[in-house]
Amino acid sequence: MSLLEKLEKLRESDTLPMHMPGHKRRDDGGVLPYSLDITEIDGFDDLHHRTGILKELSDKAAKLRGASSAFPLVNGSTCGILASVYALTKRGDTVIIARNCHKSVYHACEIRNLNVKYIYPPMSDDGVFLSVTPESIVTALEEYPAAKLVIITSPTYEGVISDIKSISNSVHSHGAKLLVDAAHGAHIGYSECFPQSAVSLGADISIESLHKTLTSLTQSAMLYANSGIDAEKIEYALDIFETSSPSYILFASIDKCLDIIEKDGARLFEEYSENLDAFYKSTAGLKHLEILNFTNENGAFDSDKGKLVISCKNTDITGFALAEKLRENYHIEAEAAAPSYVICITSVCDTAENFSRLAGALIDFDKSVNNIGNPNSRPVYPQAKCVYFITAAADSKETESLPFSRARGRISAEYLWAYPPGIPIIAPGEIITAKIIDYIKFCRKSGCNLIIPGRETADEISVK
Amino acid sequence: MSLLEKLEKLRESDTLPMHMPGHKRRDDGGVLPYSLDITEIDGFDDLHHRTGILKELSDKAAKLRGASSAFPLVNGSTCGILASVYALTKRGDTVIIARNCHKSVYHACEIRNLNVKYIYPPMSDDGVFLSVTPESIVTALEEYPAAKLVIITSPTYEGVISDIKSISNSVHSHGAKLLVDAAHGAHIGYSECFPQSAVSLGADISIESLHKTLTSLTQSAMLYANSGIDAEKIEYALDIFETSSPSYILFASIDKCLDIIEKDGARLFEEYSENLDAFYKSTAGLKHLEILNFTNENGAFDSDKGKLVISCKNTDITGFALAEKLRENYHIEAEAAAPSYVICITSVCDTAENFSRLAGALIDFDKSVNNIGNPNSRPVYPQAKCVYFITAAADSKETESLPFSRARGRISAEYLWAYPPGIPIIAPGEIITAKIIDYIKFCRKSGCNLIIPGRETADEISVK
Repeated sequence: MSLLEKLEKLRESDTLPMHMPGHKRRDDGGVLPYSLDITEIDGFDDLHHRTGILKELSDKAAKLRGASSAFPLVNGSTCGILASVYALTKRGDTVIIARNCHKSVYHACEIRNLNVKYIYPPMSDDGVFLSVTPESIVTALEEYPAAKLVIITSPTYEGVISDIKSISNSVHSHGAKLLVDAAHGAHIGYSECFPQSAVSLGADISIESLHKTLTSLTQSAMLYANSGIDAEKIEYALDIFETSSPSYILFASIDKCLDIIEKDGARLFEEYSENLDAFYKSTAGLKHLEILNFTNENGAFDSDKGKLVISCKNTDITGFALAEKLRENYHIEAEAAAPSYVICITSVCDTAENFSRLAGALIDFDKSVNNIGNPNSRPVYPQAKCVYFITAAADSKETESLPFSRARGRISAEYLWAYPPGIPIIAPGEIITAKIIDYIKFCRKSGCNLIIPGRETADEISVK
Repeated sequence: MSLLEKLEKLRESDTLPMHMPGHKRRDDGGVLPYSLDITEIDGFDDLHHRTGILKELSDKAAKLRGASSAFPLVNGSTCGILASVYALTKRGDTVIIARNCHKSVYHACEIRNLNVKYIYPPMSDDGVFLSVTPESIVTALEEYPAAKLVIITSPTYEGVISDIKSISNSVHSHGAKLLVDAAHGAHIGYSECFPQSAVSLGADISIESLHKTLTSLTQSAMLYANSGIDAEKIEYALDIFETSSPSYILFASIDKCLDIIEKDGARLFEEYSENLDAFYKSTAGLKHLEILNFTNENGAFDSDKGKLVISCKNTDITGFALAEKLRENYHIEAEAAAPSYVICITSVCDTAENFSRLAGALIDFDKSVNNIGNPNSRPVYPQAKCVYFITAAADSKETESLPFSRARGRISAEYLWAYPPGIPIIAPGEIITAKIIDYIKFCRKSGCNLIIPGRETADEISVK
């Protein structure tokens, strides 16, 4: 019986709920799923001590993924990242992370008070971080032999994939572990139409947002681990970072998502792949806009063709303006916009009609833009000079708040993120250089949303 | 327009979602709310940078609660606890916590590497922790003048309420902050039929599970803060512990829950109160079982009458057996069972019929049990002797795993919880004394579910 069927059976029963939730499973005639909403009650297992239906669900997920173990997540990939880093390190350990990691990786390092060493993947002309090279990993491991853990993102938000097989080999030969943030790669590896999954290529842990590119509900995700990982330590850490009242609506959607892959995945991924191929073909004639394709020839190891990255770097509009035009003129809501591109997320749930509607909009809009060469010359993403651990700087008691114009040469006590790509331009403990200030100016001028967590505006930054 | 109406309007629009979630809001004819499930897209605000509909929702919550600010939570009260402790302390700070705090408080202290000092509330004959006394808080603050933060649970799982007004006065006069874990008290303070809320009585922060005793969906909660709290620090910390893809299904249920309180709360809480009074009256004649009532006369400051605690301490059955009988014979699912009592959670969604069904079941079952005085004499909850910070002990590299019989005198590197009440019998860094081992034996014999996080069984424990 699926989890959803089990919840429906409970709903049809005459059992009187004298437990949480307080809505008592009473439907109100509306659309919210009150009648199926429970947390861990008798017969429905315990997320942090799985022996029943959640164990079955986890085992099914692990088997489908070809992983040793799987852990369902209800606080997004975020809690999987926090828990993995917590489980795989001790305070003060050295870790190597790709600088284009999601903020949750930085937060995980801050929590654990880690000594963070960065790898900077190359960046394309469009401002897209390309693959982390195996060579850069080897170099970093040689420079920081104490590193216990390497963390990279693959696929990235833009669908760029790194050479996990070579990277995991290098990491393992140095006795370290490889954690892959594959939040955007939940759908790959189930069909030959898409690249292989990180765990199948040797990653010790892969964390995947089932809600992003598969079919489960928002906030649901899965942590997959290989045999080199102590599952008990992961359990321990997830118990810290996840609610003790998990939603069975989310679990039911995970269960259903796994069922879809298991029973209908082959057909769905093939159709999806055909739809994507048709989309790329139909947009090949764009004159000004360009659908990016990350390959070996332009600095990528591989890519996920499901992520549509629409570049406007040679045109007279920005990615932000393109996203707005798609919204206003064509009623198409993109996932994200950057100074010179727009990201569209697609999935097996996109019909052929969805793809042709997007293609049609792009072909139509392409006529109205002007190609002006490459005016958006952009400064290089600045490399940080860290002088303190993230934790020590973020915890610092003696700081002052300064506008960026007066912060040059000072040490940041805060993060500054640009959305997108949601990667820090500054992390706590780094010297704010002239290059960084220039890059911030460029981002601001381009229309990026600059965020300092906890502040209403990003006009000033705390420094020490 | 309510958030739900806004989501429904989006559903009816012709907007093509080229963003996550991957299910693309396609309903499948089933009951899961795919068609309304989004995360932060244009026009729907940003949880970690609220300026639109989530800001309105938060302001409405704060106003209803009489708090300075409110922060909606989608990872349960757990993330509110983790974030508050993170925001209000620096590494190494001293905190005073009531020993009957939820595991998330211990985890928060572990993450922040805090110096944890305990207050032990008195325990009733039934094994229920009673109110934290203002005197014990004063004593602790005098003993540990460096303490920055005091954390207590009120109401407790069993509905016991502490004297927040006196406690907050003492805490503030020592220059510290008071955090109240009111996960079980989301419903109090909105009507004269129930006690006042923690924030209205001076708590600096109160964290409340809206899903537990109000009407929103599982995992949703709210953090309320008073004016002494730097909201930016809370924002910063919540950004760490909460998913970056929050569920708008959960937000919509929070919005609806607040609407219900605002528009219909007075009537609903009055009816609920009348139903409760009728329940207590109808069960007053129980001969063997007893509905507990925590008052000034038996060591409590006050209590939440909405939490029904059914004691069987004078009978020949345990709380575990009683819960099973309620389930099997009467199809009533209780919230939790302890050696000598059962907890039932009630809410405004419980009808008069629900209450009379429960009362009828108890009256009927009461006839079949035997009153054998007070056979369940229980050992006193053992006080811990801490020799290391939780963090240092949990992080310890040199440990061995031993059965409890051989662990006496050693220092624990792990937690041991008994469910219920979900309060640690042992935390990392504490000496495992003979009294503790006796207490564990008692719990095991009574049928408690003993859990060491990350372990399949609680037969052995890591010690150093």
